[in-house]
Amino acid sequence: MDGYKAPLRDMEFVIYELLDFESHWQSIPAYQETSRDLVQAILGEAAKFSENVIAPLDPVGDREGCHWQDGVVTTPTGYKEAYQQYIDAGWSSMTHDPEYGGQGLPIAIGEYLREMTGCASWSWSSYPGLSDGAMSTLAAHGTEEQKQMFLTKLVSGRWTGTMCLTEPHCGTDLGLIRTKAEPQVDGTYAISGTKIFITSGDHDVSENIVHVVLARMAGAPSGTKGLSLFLVPKYKVAEDGEAGESNGVGCGSIEHKMGLNGSATCVMNFEEATGYLIGEAGRGLNCMFTFMNMARIGTALQGVATAEQSFQKALSYARERLQMRSLTGVKNPDGPADPIIVHPDVRRMLLTQKAFAEGGRMLMGYCYKLVEVIEAGNDQDAAKRADQALAFLTPIAKAFLTEAGCECANLAVQCYGGHGFVKENGVEQLVRDSKIATLYEGTTGVQALDLLGRKVLMSQGEAMKPFVSEIQAFCSEHRDSPFAAKLLEMIQQWGDLTMKIGVAAMENPDELGAASVDYLMFSGYITLAYFWAQAAQTSQQALDNGAGETEFYTAKIQTARFYFSRLLPRTNTLAETMLAGAEDLMSMDEEAFAF
Amino acid sequence: MDGYKAPLRDMEFVIYELLDFESHWQSIPAYQETSRDLVQAILGEAAKFSENVIAPLDPVGDREGCHWQDGVVTTPTGYKEAYQQYIDAGWSSMTHDPEYGGQGLPIAIGEYLREMTGCASWSWSSYPGLSDGAMSTLAAHGTEEQKQMFLTKLVSGRWTGTMCLTEPHCGTDLGLIRTKAEPQVDGTYAISGTKIFITSGDHDVSENIVHVVLARMAGAPSGTKGLSLFLVPKYKVAEDGEAGESNGVGCGSIEHKMGLNGSATCVMNFEEATGYLIGEAGRGLNCMFTFMNMARIGTALQGVATAEQSFQKALSYARERLQMRSLTGVKNPDGPADPIIVHPDVRRMLLTQKAFAEGGRMLMGYCYKLVEVIEAGNDQDAAKRADQALAFLTPIAKAFLTEAGCECANLAVQCYGGHGFVKENGVEQLVRDSKIATLYEGTTGVQALDLLGRKVLMSQGEAMKPFVSEIQAFCSEHRDSPFAAKLLEMIQQWGDLTMKIGVAAMENPDELGAASVDYLMFSGYITLAYFWAQAAQTSQQALDNGAGETEFYTAKIQTARFYFSRLLPRTNTLAETMLAGAEDLMSMDEEAFAF
Repeated sequence: MDGYKAPLRDMEFVIYELLDFESHWQSIPAYQETSRDLVQAILGEAAKFSENVIAPLDPVGDREGCHWQDGVVTTPTGYKEAYQQYIDAGWSSMTHDPEYGGQGLPIAIGEYLREMTGCASWSWSSYPGLSDGAMSTLAAHGTEEQKQMFLTKLVSGRWTGTMCLTEPHCGTDLGLIRTKAEPQVDGTYAISGTKIFITSGDHDVSENIVHVVLARMAGAPSGTKGLSLFLVPKYKVAEDGEAGESNGVGCGSIEHKMGLNGSATCVMNFEEATGYLIGEAGRGLNCMFTFMNMARIGTALQGVATAEQSFQKALSYARERLQMRSLTGVKNPDGPADPIIVHPDVRRMLLTQKAFAEGGRMLMGYCYKLVEVIEAGNDQDAAKRADQALAFLTPIAKAFLTEAGCECANLAVQCYGGHGFVKENGVEQLVRDSKIATLYEGTTGVQALDLLGRKVLMSQGEAMKPFVSEIQAFCSEHRDSPFAAKLLEMIQQWGDLTMKIGVAAMENPDELGAASVDYLMFSGYITLAYFWAQAAQTSQQALDNGAGETEFYTAKIQTARFYFSRLLPRTNTLAETMLAGAEDLMSMDEEAFAF
Repeated sequence: MDGYKAPLRDMEFVIYELLDFESHWQSIPAYQETSRDLVQAILGEAAKFSENVIAPLDPVGDREGCHWQDGVVTTPTGYKEAYQQYIDAGWSSMTHDPEYGGQGLPIAIGEYLREMTGCASWSWSSYPGLSDGAMSTLAAHGTEEQKQMFLTKLVSGRWTGTMCLTEPHCGTDLGLIRTKAEPQVDGTYAISGTKIFITSGDHDVSENIVHVVLARMAGAPSGTKGLSLFLVPKYKVAEDGEAGESNGVGCGSIEHKMGLNGSATCVMNFEEATGYLIGEAGRGLNCMFTFMNMARIGTALQGVATAEQSFQKALSYARERLQMRSLTGVKNPDGPADPIIVHPDVRRMLLTQKAFAEGGRMLMGYCYKLVEVIEAGNDQDAAKRADQALAFLTPIAKAFLTEAGCECANLAVQCYGGHGFVKENGVEQLVRDSKIATLYEGTTGVQALDLLGRKVLMSQGEAMKPFVSEIQAFCSEHRDSPFAAKLLEMIQQWGDLTMKIGVAAMENPDELGAASVDYLMFSGYITLAYFWAQAAQTSQQALDNGAGETEFYTAKIQTARFYFSRLLPRTNTLAETMLAGAEDLMSMDEEAFAF
């Protein structure tokens, strides 16, 4: 089995050919200097770093796991050293504000780096990964003093960040949060409480850890409105700005998990730890949304990374493993059997993985563009539109792509047959590592309620209109596309289904919950269909223009065809089941589920 | 979380109300004494044994795993003692021939025992589990002398059995087997070679292990026609019939696996080990089919066991976990939030698990009946018909129910949210333990080719006709069933699809492989629909007759409705994708999958 190989050609396709980041960057003053040569050089280096330094750590992390002893967490062999290489090379500061030590490169470039390190090892990547969300939260809501104190250190990578929401009795239901914040005379707060499932909550890779903590001020109302957001460092900031004395933040234990063993998932105890209020008191959840939306996009990327890794491993095995002969006659006459890639069903599994990996990469690229318009652009109207578009696409990307990632991981194991079940072949780890992506940062069910309830129905369908219009425009512009007619039919159906569910939900709110997951998955299949239609269109044009690379572009068109003939028809089922109604779900008496 | 609770009421429903085993047993002379009291007493004891003795071993087995040192395998703490209790209680001999020490009870009763011990711990159950296949093979193909030597010991449970097919370079492709058998002057054979993935290949729970080994006699042709079947004990049989000296059979190592850690998966080395030919030379694969068919049915049961375990764990958690309020208003005013079972999407996940667990149990019961007609009946024509029916249903049961099992395991984790990813909650183990079921004993892809190629198309559709006629007869008899019209429509569609694929496959054999898995899953959904329609019919009659247990029967009807409105529509997609053709799978150049 070959190791991870970064799909640079495909990234380039998405960045330059499909989404035309070149013009987009021209429209953002801060990004106008982003030349193609620079991007290729950076991505090339990121690929080498991910393939050579990070990828070899992934099985080590799985085997060794993290260790907790006397409140101290030790990461797997090599993690700390790789992290040092990472910050030495300047990867942590790449996309951040030059005012705080960053290099000011486009956010999307940072995301492609994240895809590569994440594909190489999602466990390792969780240490630098959480910092990005903390930095965005600080950048958006912190005071200048807070930025000088914390942001510069986070940008340098010498300190890392976390996000502390979940408590033992509440994950989704943040209104139940009990962690308390007592105002102190010096304007800081004493934070006390227990948080669980804190990714990178404690570890040995950085000098200090900055926790972004959701807590309730003394006397604040119950529910989510009483929540405020605080910055709580592991070590207090000393006079010289460096990590000083301990700050009442302790790691009580780490979880033993299904997968991502190299990533420390911590129980964090705060005992009158000094915290700094970020943003307004009582607006904690709103400030946290910056982090949560970043985290959701980041988790969507985990789905893509899983699909890519699964595809690469399965493909490599399918080319090597000799078993049975092709149904249409011997293909490998010199061997005792044919490589299993000759079998149609093995190809069905490989192409499913390929279509999700590359399709997901397109959707992510589209989201990155929106993030850049919001975060780095100087056109307020454009930023507002991008924000609405991203709000609509985030639950789709998060839930659909992570579900797809899990499917791909299972298909990779399936391609290996019984050998897939054996740890040393390294493919079952994908199943174990990927499942969390459909759970954390809001389960698939939570994303689905967000999409259908908060986004689509609450806006009376307005939230989906710009994206639908864009698809319609594509279809009008490319009437000769073999996929335009189907796409138009699908968006018509999408609208009809939305309307029907909306009407039913007005009568009975349970109709919303009864339809939501199927609705989200349906939306995901259409969304990816749009990107596959575009990919085919772009590739056909390249072929027509004699751009060379015939095999690459032909494979894109073939994968698009596969997507439309084999994956998009899943909407046939979803269209029916999402209208099946709440009655068949709700009528059973709670006591009658089992006897 | 409560522990495993055997679903005795549901088993009784399947045995007595749905499938009328009472009349069926009356038609088999050997089983005529099987009274309802006896069955209830046995199943009640099996339930207690599974719940109290076996279930507590399951997390232990997962945590400790098996250990291999210097060729010796040690099972997890408590496994050996529980096995001793198992044979002391006579469970191993229950369904076997009284002539060899068995109790002659109906095979189905043994299968319900297997479901219960398997649900409690599939890892532990793999030690007694493989013996059943070895016993059937011996009973069918062994000489009287071999039966006296081996079968009596296997029936007593003091010895256990295995099945040795796979080699490093061949799993599905058994024609490539290299293990050799050299004839000896005393009529035995010297067996040499390496087998991998041998479940229970070595362990410490029994006194001797009898391996059923597929090997090639010196000078035999290559391919499957050159294979013969041999019995190879770990210890030679001494003069007194007990385990004697070692026999050149060694365990080279055990696999470290994704799951089923308590089950020893062994590399077995045979070095001129003494083996006994079973059945005719060169007919090894045919004799092995007895074992393989048993193993496939046994693996189908693993799917049902996974669905049942998943359902029980998820249901228990969904009743306890308080999170968010119902969309239709507060349901648990005394608590800080409502139990998550109030949310429609959680119910969708629970009912999916329930429908697969109970639906699978019905299909398995139907298969057991066929097995009994074949193995224990005295009507040759009936046995032949049952054999054909079972041959048709086996790949469906094996692949469809194990895929459903994996889906249920993942849904159980999903119901737990992030807590599902944590090992101590015991639900992620289901995902890790269940995946192998879609791989071993022939992957889902292999089952699908068996169903569509060898069974359906090779018989020009004859193989499916008796089952289809039975469904038609049910629909004619119960025209008032709310499901009859849909069932009739579906079997019409099933026939049409079969015809279309058959025609396409005559032109291009790859069309077979391109359609096979979707065809199998489609067949599975119809098959379960038939059983759910029957369950609803039987339950409605019970309600109409005032049988009491209103909640139980109502829940059956509600689950049937759920199955038809939420799961059966998956055929909408499969009907389209199975006709999508081979072109979109086969056109991509092998080198163009990745760049």
